[in-house]
Amino acid sequence: MQLALAEADAAALAGDVPVGAVMVGPAGEQVVARNLREVERDPTAHAEVVALRAASKLVGHWRLDGWTMVVTLEPCPMCAGALVNSRVTRLVYGCRDPKAGAVHSLFTIATDPRLNHRLEVVEGVEAEACALRLREFFAARRREGKK
Amino acid sequence: MQLALAEADAAALAGDVPVGAVMVGPAGEQVVARNLREVERDPTAHAEVVALRAASKLVGHWRLDGWTMVVTLEPCPMCAGALVNSRVTRLVYGCRDPKAGAVHSLFTIATDPRLNHRLEVVEGVEAEACALRLREFFAARRREGKK
Repeated sequence: MQLALAEADAAALAGDVPVGAVMVGPAGEQVVARNLREVERDPTAHAEVVALRAASKLVGHWRLDGWTMVVTLEPCPMCAGALVNSRVTRLVYGCRDPKAGAVHSLFTIATDPRLNHRLEVVEGVEAEACALRLREFFAARRREGKK
Repeated sequence: MQLALAEADAAALAGDVPVGAVMVGPAGEQVVARNLREVERDPTAHAEVVALRAASKLVGHWRLDGWTMVVTLEPCPMCAGALVNSRVTRLVYGCRDPKAGAVHSLFTIATDPRLNHRLEVVEGVEAEACALRLREFFAARRREGKK
């Protein structure tokens, strides 16, 4: 999670909402990623999707069985769905997202028995450090008059 | 929808589940896309995500206000979430997906009042033609002994 937090800090420096992710593969492979939505002008470039695409590129196929995703914020519906679609084994996240979280808060996509894959989920790892970065980022944006 | 169906056929020819999408912008811009999961070995490369990324590239930003997504199959959680994240105005789709559909079948992500954006949704356009392609694709795969 420390690596994911460093990625979140890098996202904030570039003007993106501070969310960072690390994926760890079954043989210890490691991929880091951060939210690139503003930088890449891509609505799908949340940290999780960037990480999943990078990990798939690394292994040469779309199935990521045995991989663990570590991310600072509870995934949104898009990202939770992408984790299911990728067959990722385990999700570890920092703080909840009451406005868009799709693992515990608004939906439970990562563990829904109706979908064709479910993840093991651990939440609350370094939750306060993860949430602090988001609070500071949005407070700074409000000071600058951006919504 | 005819263009989206042609994209679905192209996906099937390449060995991907036949789903195609077309996006139409507020000034008549048009982007076509198809499911590229197998071809690109990318778990996020569903037709909708490919289309959203292409449209964002075309306009140079991640907000796709005023755009309409036309897609042959009801979007999954990842794609429905991506449509919300992109602020797409309208979704038109062909047939429902009882196993993973996230607009009407299993979830109602595109119209959920708790999320920060909702889409207008029209379903059932050329539904039978859209469904037929999927049935034929999976029947052929079963004949070939693939699951």
